[in-house]
Amino acid sequence: MIERLSLNQITTRSWSLPDAVAGCAEAGVGWIGLWRDKVAEVGVETAARLVREHGLRVSSLCRGGFFTGRGPDGPTGDGVADTLAALDEAVALGTDVLVLVVGGIADNDLGLSRRRVAEALDQLVPAALDRGVRLALEPLHPMQCAERSVLSTLRQALHLAAPHPPEAVGVMVDELHVWWDPAVEASIAAAAGRIAGFQVCDELVPMPDPLMCRGLPGTGPIDHRHLRTCVEAAGYHGPIEVEIFNTDLWSRPGADVLPEVITSYRNHVAP
Amino acid sequence: MIERLSLNQITTRSWSLPDAVAGCAEAGVGWIGLWRDKVAEVGVETAARLVREHGLRVSSLCRGGFFTGRGPDGPTGDGVADTLAALDEAVALGTDVLVLVVGGIADNDLGLSRRRVAEALDQLVPAALDRGVRLALEPLHPMQCAERSVLSTLRQALHLAAPHPPEAVGVMVDELHVWWDPAVEASIAAAAGRIAGFQVCDELVPMPDPLMCRGLPGTGPIDHRHLRTCVEAAGYHGPIEVEIFNTDLWSRPGADVLPEVITSYRNHVAP
Repeated sequence: MIERLSLNQITTRSWSLPDAVAGCAEAGVGWIGLWRDKVAEVGVETAARLVREHGLRVSSLCRGGFFTGRGPDGPTGDGVADTLAALDEAVALGTDVLVLVVGGIADNDLGLSRRRVAEALDQLVPAALDRGVRLALEPLHPMQCAERSVLSTLRQALHLAAPHPPEAVGVMVDELHVWWDPAVEASIAAAAGRIAGFQVCDELVPMPDPLMCRGLPGTGPIDHRHLRTCVEAAGYHGPIEVEIFNTDLWSRPGADVLPEVITSYRNHVAP
Repeated sequence: MIERLSLNQITTRSWSLPDAVAGCAEAGVGWIGLWRDKVAEVGVETAARLVREHGLRVSSLCRGGFFTGRGPDGPTGDGVADTLAALDEAVALGTDVLVLVVGGIADNDLGLSRRRVAEALDQLVPAALDRGVRLALEPLHPMQCAERSVLSTLRQALHLAAPHPPEAVGVMVDELHVWWDPAVEASIAAAAGRIAGFQVCDELVPMPDPLMCRGLPGTGPIDHRHLRTCVEAAGYHGPIEVEIFNTDLWSRPGADVLPEVITSYRNHVAP
C-alpha cells in the first residue's frame, strides 16, 4: 500500500466505480474518495460491497450541502434533506467523512446565504452525531463564491464549526482552495481537532477556467510538502486525497491516469 | 459634476487619453483614473495639460509594482525602478495615488515572493514621502495570485503597510478583489486612515475568465452600497472609480460606454 494516498475518484472520471475500486486495489492504493453520482450508478449496497471486497477504505464521500438554495446550475433543492440522505449513504459506504459544499449566493444576498449555512448545520448536527459521520465543511476558492460556496476561507469554516462538537463538524482542507491564503498556516493550526481530510492537487497557470483549473501535484505553484506538514502539525495523519478537475485527465482512461497520480504523489506530496 | 464618480480609463479602453478626458468633461464626470500605457501614448506632459484644461482631477495612476519579478507574461523587469518612474509620472499628472500590483509568484516560492514585496516597500517609502504620492497597495483576487499578485487580502495589505506612515503606504479597495472575503467589513474598518481609493464593478456569473470577469455595477452579486458605506465609515470620502475589464465594453466606443457607467453608478453605487 502507498502510505496515506487516496484516489478521489473525480480524478479518474472516465472510470466507473467498479473500475476505480479494482484499479486502486491493483495499484496498491488503499483509500478511495467516492462521489455520490458514481455510487448511484451501481447503487450504495453494491458500491459498499465492492469497496469491502477489494480491501479498500473510503476516505470521504462527496458531497452534501447546497444549503443556500443556489448552485452552479441555478436554484437547488432542499440541501438539508439531501445531506441527511448523504449521511446515510456515508454510513453504508463505511466512511465517517461527508464533504459539504455549502452553496452559492441566493437572492443576491451574501449575508443571508451565509446565515442559511449556519442554520442548516444546526439542523444537521444531531443526525451527524447519531450516524457517527463528520460533516466536513469545505471552504471553496473565492472565485467559486457566487455559484458554489459562500464559504471561502478556512477561518470562516472554523467560525461556522465552533458552536458544534468536533466529531460532528470538521473542515476539509483542499489545497486548491486555500493555498493562496496569507493566513493558511495560522488557520490550519487553528483547525487542530477539526481537520477531517486533506486534498491535494496543483493550480494550472495560467488558469483556463475557474472550475477546471487543476493539475497533478508538482505542475503548479502549490508547496504540497509545506501544507502537508502544516496539517500534520495540527494533528491530521489520515488519508491524503488527490482530487483533480482537469479536462485532459478526464478524457483519458483511468488506468493511464492512476500511475501518474501515484508518481506525482510520491514526488511532491509524500513524506 | 456627478458626485465622486471617477472613470477608470480601462473601462473605456477603446478611447485614447484625449478622447477619455474630453468625454468625461462633456459628461460631467469630474475625476479620471489613468493608466500609464494610455498616458505614454501622448506623453506625460500632454496628458497632464489635457487633464488640467478639461478641469478634471486624477483619482489614481495605474500602476507600479511587480516587485516579485513575475507577471502574467513571465519574468518582469526591476519593479522598484519602474515604480520610482511611476511616482514621478503621478506627480506630473497631479495625483497623489499610485496603484501597486505587487506581482505573482517568482521561483515557485510564495513566501519568498511575499518577502520581496515588503523589501520593495522599504526601498520606495522615502521616495513616496518625498514626492507626496501615496503607494496604494491593491490586494488582487486570489485567482490572480500566481500570475499577478501575491497580495491577496486587505488584511495582508494592512500588515504590509503597518511599518510605514499612512501618507506613504495606503490600500486600494477594489470590490472585485475583496467582496467575497468574510472579513471584508472588519478589514475595511481596520484600514481607517489607509484607504487611498475605492474601485467598483460587478462580478460576471458564471465567470468567463479570471481577468475579464467584470461587469457594470448592478449586473452581479456585489452589494455596492454596503461596501461604499463600509469605506465611508472608515473615513474615506474620496473619488469612486468604476473600473471594468470586460471584452464587450472594451469593443465598444467609449462614448457609448460612459453613459452606461454613469447610470449604473447612480443606480447601484451612489449615495
